[in-house]
Amino acid sequence: MQRLVNKRSEKIGLAPGTLVHVGEKRTEKVAINLFDYDEKQFQEKAVENIRDLTPVKAETSVSWINVSGVHEIGAIEQIGKLFDIHPLVLEDIVNTAQRPKIEDFDEYVYIVMKMLYHDKEDDQVKAEQVSFILGPHFLISFQEQDGDVFDAVRERIRKGKGRIRKAGCDYLAYALMDALVDNYFVVLETLGEQMELLEEDLIDKPTPEILESIHYMKREMIFLRRLIWPLREVVGVLARGEIALIRQSTIVFLRDVYDHTIQAIDTIESYRDIMAGMLDIYLSTVSNKMNEVMKVLTIIATIFIPLTFLAGVYGMNFKYMPELEWRWGYFMAWGVMVTISVGLLFYFRKKRWL
Amino acid sequence: MQRLVNKRSEKIGLAPGTLVHVGEKRTEKVAINLFDYDEKQFQEKAVENIRDLTPVKAETSVSWINVSGVHEIGAIEQIGKLFDIHPLVLEDIVNTAQRPKIEDFDEYVYIVMKMLYHDKEDDQVKAEQVSFILGPHFLISFQEQDGDVFDAVRERIRKGKGRIRKAGCDYLAYALMDALVDNYFVVLETLGEQMELLEEDLIDKPTPEILESIHYMKREMIFLRRLIWPLREVVGVLARGEIALIRQSTIVFLRDVYDHTIQAIDTIESYRDIMAGMLDIYLSTVSNKMNEVMKVLTIIATIFIPLTFLAGVYGMNFKYMPELEWRWGYFMAWGVMVTISVGLLFYFRKKRWL
Amino acid sequence: MQRLVNKRSEKIGLAPGTLVHVGEKRTEKVAINLFDYDEKQFQEKAVENIRDLTPVKAETSVSWINVSGVHEIGAIEQIGKLFDIHPLVLEDIVNTAQRPKIEDFDEYVYIVMKMLYHDKEDDQVKAEQVSFILGPHFLISFQEQDGDVFDAVRERIRKGKGRIRKAGCDYLAYALMDALVDNYFVVLETLGEQMELLEEDLIDKPTPEILESIHYMKREMIFLRRLIWPLREVVGVLARGEIALIRQSTIVFLRDVYDHTIQAIDTIESYRDIMAGMLDIYLSTVSNKMNEVMKVLTIIATIFIPLTFLAGVYGMNFKYMPELEWRWGYFMAWGVMVTISVGLLFYFRKKRWL
Amino acid sequence: MQRLVNKRSEKIGLAPGTLVHVGEKRTEKVAINLFDYDEKQFQEKAVENIRDLTPVKAETSVSWINVSGVHEIGAIEQIGKLFDIHPLVLEDIVNTAQRPKIEDFDEYVYIVMKMLYHDKEDDQVKAEQVSFILGPHFLISFQEQDGDVFDAVRERIRKGKGRIRKAGCDYLAYALMDALVDNYFVVLETLGEQMELLEEDLIDKPTPEILESIHYMKREMIFLRRLIWPLREVVGVLARGEIALIRQSTIVFLRDVYDHTIQAIDTIESYRDIMAGMLDIYLSTVSNKMNEVMKVLTIIATIFIPLTFLAGVYGMNFKYMPELEWRWGYFMAWGVMVTISVGLLFYFRKKRWL
Amino acid sequence: MQRLVNKRSEKIGLAPGTLVHVGEKRTEKVAINLFDYDEKQFQEKAVENIRDLTPVKAETSVSWINVSGVHEIGAIEQIGKLFDIHPLVLEDIVNTAQRPKIEDFDEYVYIVMKMLYHDKEDDQVKAEQVSFILGPHFLISFQEQDGDVFDAVRERIRKGKGRIRKAGCDYLAYALMDALVDNYFVVLETLGEQMELLEEDLIDKPTPEILESIHYMKREMIFLRRLIWPLREVVGVLARGEIALIRQSTIVFLRDVYDHTIQAIDTIESYRDIMAGMLDIYLSTVSNKMNEVMKVLTIIATIFIPLTFLAGVYGMNFKYMPELEWRWGYFMAWGVMVTISVGLLFYFRKKRWL
Repeated sequence: MQRLVNKRSEKIGLAPGTLVHVGEKRTEKVAINLFDYDEKQFQEKAVENIRDLTPVKAETSVSWINVSGVHEIGAIEQIGKLFDIHPLVLEDIVNTAQRPKIEDFDEYVYIVMKMLYHDKEDDQVKAEQVSFILGPHFLISFQEQDGDVFDAVRERIRKGKGRIRKAGCDYLAYALMDALVDNYFVVLETLGEQMELLEEDLIDKPTPEILESIHYMKREMIFLRRLIWPLREVVGVLARGEIALIRQSTIVFLRDVYDHTIQAIDTIESYRDIMAGMLDIYLSTVSNKMNEVMKVLTIIATIFIPLTFLAGVYGMNFKYMPELEWRWGYFMAWGVMVTISVGLLFYFRKKRWL
Repeated sequence: MQRLVNKRSEKIGLAPGTLVHVGEKRTEKVAINLFDYDEKQFQEKAVENIRDLTPVKAETSVSWINVSGVHEIGAIEQIGKLFDIHPLVLEDIVNTAQRPKIEDFDEYVYIVMKMLYHDKEDDQVKAEQVSFILGPHFLISFQEQDGDVFDAVRERIRKGKGRIRKAGCDYLAYALMDALVDNYFVVLETLGEQMELLEEDLIDKPTPEILESIHYMKREMIFLRRLIWPLREVVGVLARGEIALIRQSTIVFLRDVYDHTIQAIDTIESYRDIMAGMLDIYLSTVSNKMNEVMKVLTIIATIFIPLTFLAGVYGMNFKYMPELEWRWGYFMAWGVMVTISVGLLFYFRKKRWL
Repeated sequence: MQRLVNKRSEKIGLAPGTLVHVGEKRTEKVAINLFDYDEKQFQEKAVENIRDLTPVKAETSVSWINVSGVHEIGAIEQIGKLFDIHPLVLEDIVNTAQRPKIEDFDEYVYIVMKMLYHDKEDDQVKAEQVSFILGPHFLISFQEQDGDVFDAVRERIRKGKGRIRKAGCDYLAYALMDALVDNYFVVLETLGEQMELLEEDLIDKPTPEILESIHYMKREMIFLRRLIWPLREVVGVLARGEIALIRQSTIVFLRDVYDHTIQAIDTIESYRDIMAGMLDIYLSTVSNKMNEVMKVLTIIATIFIPLTFLAGVYGMNFKYMPELEWRWGYFMAWGVMVTISVGLLFYFRKKRWL
Repeated sequence: MQRLVNKRSEKIGLAPGTLVHVGEKRTEKVAINLFDYDEKQFQEKAVENIRDLTPVKAETSVSWINVSGVHEIGAIEQIGKLFDIHPLVLEDIVNTAQRPKIEDFDEYVYIVMKMLYHDKEDDQVKAEQVSFILGPHFLISFQEQDGDVFDAVRERIRKGKGRIRKAGCDYLAYALMDALVDNYFVVLETLGEQMELLEEDLIDKPTPEILESIHYMKREMIFLRRLIWPLREVVGVLARGEIALIRQSTIVFLRDVYDHTIQAIDTIESYRDIMAGMLDIYLSTVSNKMNEVMKVLTIIATIFIPLTFLAGVYGMNFKYMPELEWRWGYFMAWGVMVTISVGLLFYFRKKRWL
Repeated sequence: MQRLVNKRSEKIGLAPGTLVHVGEKRTEKVAINLFDYDEKQFQEKAVENIRDLTPVKAETSVSWINVSGVHEIGAIEQIGKLFDIHPLVLEDIVNTAQRPKIEDFDEYVYIVMKMLYHDKEDDQVKAEQVSFILGPHFLISFQEQDGDVFDAVRERIRKGKGRIRKAGCDYLAYALMDALVDNYFVVLETLGEQMELLEEDLIDKPTPEILESIHYMKREMIFLRRLIWPLREVVGVLARGEIALIRQSTIVFLRDVYDHTIQAIDTIESYRDIMAGMLDIYLSTVSNKMNEVMKVLTIIATIFIPLTFLAGVYGMNFKYMPELEWRWGYFMAWGVMVTISVGLLFYFRKKRWL
């Protein structure tokens, strides 16, 4: 549940623009990494002191500043001052409970997205907030912690593969967003496989554990939906060319990301439909099993209760009970009982209970 | 239920603009409070006589008049006359069953919102109506009673912290609306925690009390949804810059409030989805438990009913029953009975009931 | 059901503009009432002969002609001719199965609304069609029968209270529509109270009567929804100022009616949500009760069936049954039986059935 | 099911414009009927040879050509050539699995609608496709077979009643569409009455037959919905005056048809809501009945099982059973048994099962 | 499940425009086929070497290049270079997990659609991706494998039937899309028939197999819906004339495809509604059957349990039991027992259980 309401309440009453980290508490030091490249040269370094970034703003080469850790308010504030970022943006960067969104400030664009990964340890989908500040010659990305899905992009920059070194900042932003969205499919595939396993067990043995799994997966879907749906609008704004900082040549690539986003949404909606169906199947199967149980009970009871009654009758101790004296009384009693049983069995077969 | 239909019916047949207080009956005196400030000076006082407010209208400093209590029709009428408010607006101010809305009268803007709080006493979410009249140099806020979520804003004005003392009336309106919306998250978090507790109990022991709690929480959601959804449109109008009284510099802040509103709506919708899932789980769990109960009954009955029948047979008093005379008849009877039991147990295990 | 499909079929095959009364058959005489007023004078009279209305059209004072009873085709036709009304409009006026709508014919506006009231006799919400023809200096209102919710408006005209005598025909139309919409809340409150009573009974004793009441109320909601939803569009057209005959000064009042309409729709939707929830609760509660019943049966049967079997065993008449000869055999049998019972009770407690 | 997917598959692979009759196979001869009229004269005749229609195109009087039977491809092709109709339109005319639609070809407008009727023989709603080709001076209507709902229109033309003889082709088209839509209400009323009967039986005796009827009616609704919903758009296009061939004076009449279409849609949606409710009621009632059955069983079993056990105990044959020797033993046994029964009855009454 | 999430994850981290085949692994050689025609001449050949296609681009006759097999990255790349196709388009062509879409690159249009067929072997609907590159004088179609639904179009070209040889590339594109969409109805008819068979079995014998079939068919619907819904937008763009490469004369034909697409969507939605209804019926029928089973058990148990008790009473071994000594005691016992049975049978008939 925690994951659906982040503890925003701590921020209440603070002036807007007051930076408060919202999210999981962390203590690692913030790590800043700089990639500076153009078609001819490429340079990669860890930035120790934020003031070292000052020259970056002036250069015309593409500079990608990746900030891992947004819990150190001070560092974020310094970067904000250096690049002249609106305080509300800084506030949103450190508030990891943000919804995916895009805001155009003319000199720069602010984009919030979510990085999804499947945490194997507690078998849960986790989300990490990634913010981008896209300027004319720089791109700053903010992550909650070290480790991301951008390594392939880094490799492409290092090796100068593809068009990345020839293109500008907007293309870099596209490449990172593409990496994020592509990664959604890994998470969705994992969920799909879990769903498949669940489905196989479903009709066979509808245990309460399966019920719990279905409930748990539905919650995962609700969680994912909330993170992916707003992306449609965010990427749509970029792909429709409404942002001046995005060049025409990059838009066709962003349309591709848009398509993938739609496809991710489609997939989630299909999953939801299937999950809904699974619950129905679960309920029906439980009803079916109960029906089967009841039939067994009914058949056994319906056959033996009259027989037991008959046996009871001839166990009575009345003085005068003529049948008891008969030579073949006992065998006639058995005869009657067998006749009753067979009759009932035929009745049940006619009712198709057997 | 009361909370979903307010007793508007008392107003039927009255001329429009006739002020009738709709809402909980109160008797406290109306309290009026004035904050008057600009970048250089700041003044705070309780207003005893509404006529004392006359100079306020002329000044160019920002004046925030906070009115606690809208049940005193006379006071509201006097303020209305002083600030030249349309009678229909006054009518809406005293009618606390209003839907959140915004109306632009050019000289002033009228905004209705809801203040939410979780009443610990009867463990229920309560709503109080807050109306704003935003003029060029004044902001009048109307509340149903003393006590609100604005203390942090007051503190910021007093201490001159942030940009609040430098900005105008529209920024003050933003600050108050932001405080209101931020507070929604406190309420939502409380509900989220209750939902989490409920969920833990759910599969384990599906008692009628849990059912009642689910029903109760669903009603809370319906109540909240009605209050928060219309806010989307209200804040949207402000954030899109459709109101002349809102300066360009304030719009970026209102966009922030808009984002929070969307997030609150998202959260409520997720809660609703989860609640719907919980009811399904409840029903399924009840079915499951019944199934389990039925199985126990069926197993016991199916094993013992035939045995009892056998015992009954050998309890019959027929004169001629050859088995009864046999030396080991009794033990053979036991043998048959044990064989039947064991056979049935195997059958049940094959059916996976055991 | 009748109320959901009115017998339009009688009209089939007739030329458009042929007046046929659709609705409950009535025999009362049509009553026509005239209010003629401006700021200075006021006059009220019952009109015996429709020709007496001829001068009314020429005057510049506001004339409100109220026609009670639309089943007298002849009278409606005469009025139509006098005021030059399109035959299709006349056809719609006498067809009380109309949907709320608005049509602008430039010289006049035709508005259809529904008057709702809760019929105490058969405890049902009833609807009566009210049509308005709004011209530049006259307003004609058509009702199905005597008795309406307009008495307060009449009183305001008589006493010259409020702005009604100073304003024009459009304001009168507003006042009447406002009275109609305000009355919806009376009906909604009654339904709300019934729903509340139902809800209290729900979890406690889920009888078939409650089920029937829920079904009945859901049908009432469907009925109301159909009548109120289209009003949103009707009043919206008026409030957006799309009608030339509506003056600017009246629009602010119509916006108020619009707000109330939205609020009525909101209320109905909330009711529907709650009703849906109530049915779920009903089903769950029935399941729960059955579960409880089954547990009692299972506990009793599971304890006594083995005991009865044991008693049966020692009631067998085998010649050689060693236990029967033992001195303490009987008491040992009791001992075994008590042990089994206690064991099963512990088992049930462990399963939390007790 | 057949009715939901027509066998379009036969058409696969054919060139567009290839005429293939899709629909029920028929063998009757195509009948063509001509009405030619203006304000002064009127003429009605059966057309034997399609070439006889040649002069019709040139005349300025209104010509209504009604074609009954679209299975004769040759005849349709000839008419198409004569009136210069696009091959795709001809293809659609003979394909009776068309969706209601409108297409404007400037020289003529092509409109597809459905004629509904309730087939009493197999108690099912049937649909027949009616196509209109509306030209400047002619209207061609195509039906699947003889017999329609247009007789009243024919009568009006013959008698010169109403405005039909004075108005043009577009008014004739309106009159026919109006007749079609009016007839929908006859079908809806029949369904409504069936639903009412079903509803009465519902709570009383929830038999599988009622379940089947509900399922059957839901399918009828799905079928009707598919035919009526698209009409909204078709008639909307006409009523908004987007078609040049429709004169201004006819638009007000088409708005009336539009209103009726909306009302038919409203009615179907209400029916669907009610049907959904009926299924819920059915399920709940079945649950209720089962509950009642279970209670009877539980009460009987719970009372008699312990008593039978007691009787069994005193039927044991132990040598030493002191109670058996007591003088009043038998009566005490009865006493104990009556006490137990009464105790249990009180318990059940407390649980409100009795 | 596989079919709902294609393994896109393999593509993660690759530069955009890197061609990776996503889909079923195949090893057949890519087959390229060329149709080159205009009104006068026609030529058909298998292309062995992609370089042979070079002259095709220059000609003004219509050239249809059909590529079967998109798993050979090299071939696709060569074609892409030859016709100057954007790398992202090539990437989408070889990624068979694409959603139906249309992209206009001015010099050419890229269209993705799905070819559906019912695989008889595993009784499942399968989809194959078909991409079109529509240029001014050429159309390239890409399929996953040999075998398609285009043979009728090929025949029409060969024989010069219809307008196909006279029309341009856009008409050819229409003809192919029309063939694809027409084929959807074959698949839908097959599903419809399966649904019909299922429905017949439903109420009669609600076995778990039927439940599984319903679940399976619902998944087929979800699968189909995802493929067909986006087509609405794709064909809509074409039919609205938003693409410059589509001539005016072709648009009327595309509107026809659009109508068919809508009809396919309508059909799927109806199927979904019916499937939903079938699950409800299934559940209700299972409940009904259980009810019936319970009634039989209850009737048998309720009748015999009291009788058995009575028999037990007179089987007790008390010394003093006066009834046992009576002459007619035994027959009186029978009399009492018959009376009880008959009484209970009357009670059950009154409760309408018999």
